Amino acid sequence: MTNEYPSQLLERAINEFSKLPGIGKKTAMRLALHLLRQEESTVAAFTGAINQMKSEVRYCKACHNISDSDLCPICANQNRDHGTICVVETVRDVMAIEQTLQYHGVYHVLGGVISPMDGIGPNDLQIASLVERVHREEVQEVVLALSSTMEGDTTNFYIFRKIASANIKISALARGISVGDELQYADEITLGRSIINRTAFDGRAV
Amino acid sequence: MTNEYPSQLLERAINEFSKLPGIGKKTAMRLALHLLRQEESTVAAFTGAINQMKSEVRYCKACHNISDSDLCPICANQNRDHGTICVVETVRDVMAIEQTLQYHGVYHVLGGVISPMDGIGPNDLQIASLVERVHREEVQEVVLALSSTMEGDTTNFYIFRKIASANIKISALARGISVGDELQYADEITLGRSIINRTAFDGRAV
Repeated sequence: MTNEYPSQLLERAINEFSKLPGIGKKTAMRLALHLLRQEESTVAAFTGAINQMKSEVRYCKACHNISDSDLCPICANQNRDHGTICVVETVRDVMAIEQTLQYHGVYHVLGGVISPMDGIGPNDLQIASLVERVHREEVQEVVLALSSTMEGDTTNFYIFRKIASANIKISALARGISVGDELQYADEITLGRSIINRTAFDGRAV
Repeated sequence: MTNEYPSQLLERAINEFSKLPGIGKKTAMRLALHLLRQEESTVAAFTGAINQMKSEVRYCKACHNISDSDLCPICANQNRDHGTICVVETVRDVMAIEQTLQYHGVYHVLGGVISPMDGIGPNDLQIASLVERVHREEVQEVVLALSSTMEGDTTNFYIFRKIASANIKISALARGISVGDELQYADEITLGRSIINRTAFDGRAV
């Protein structure tokens, strides 16, 4: 066996697919051979959509969310509460919170969290522009919605120190038992926090 | 929430990704956002490799395997045994058998198996060209290596009838216990076949 694949063109496509996160060689081969079986126009639509996204997608000037124009649909929406800014790590977090339908303010996408191990400092993130927003705009509340990790907590604390002087309300996502979880499977730190931060019970189910 | 995604360009890319087999909406989003974070040249290499594969890949005139030229590397290789043709369903089967390093003949890729339920008849497959090859070339043996399913068996039988008159050796892959399997977990049909087709034991481990 001189070569694993009968075609270098196929091999190159498989190699490119296997560079994607979570795509191994076998899956890459399945995907490449799948596209090979499709119509030319189907393949062109696939690669065209990706190329166009890469070349034309922009980032919201206000919140750094992905956008098709200068302002993302959320920042451009005057029905949103522009006095409340929810600070998140990534664009995916924006989408996740939007799907809950429970938040009506605007966002600020940091682009990650402070992580010295990965060489990511405060200046690699959109923290300065957040501080500027908080001082420039009429902001009443900043909701810190970062990951519940050491890096997330560090970033929360860093931001807190930077904006504490603005005299606004600063909140963080509630930590507690996941809805649908059984108590015995919750870790003790989460369970402990959920007792400390217990909420008033008004007799209705959540 | 008016729209699930902040950008239609992103949405289109996600939709295209999620058309691929085994890629759901969440994975599609992860892949699209991953590409968005990459360099322009990285994305161009990805889409370029796919486009080039689609437009330039050819099929071997002899065996219908994927190829970069008229003859695939296997058919073009004079060190292979051109008197033995292994009949397989797909290009992936060729690669799987090649990786065993146990086969030194050439192949014939049918492009599937006869499956009336899916509307696939003998004329939708490369059976006629196989019959022609068997009668035209100096073939000593045809190895039927199709799936061990009803459709595979039907196709085996159909091909057998078409080439039985050529007076050549026709063989099929051995059915039996998988290497590394425990007997108690083998299904009874496979176990039964493995007893009927038991092989001489020469004292060496396989």
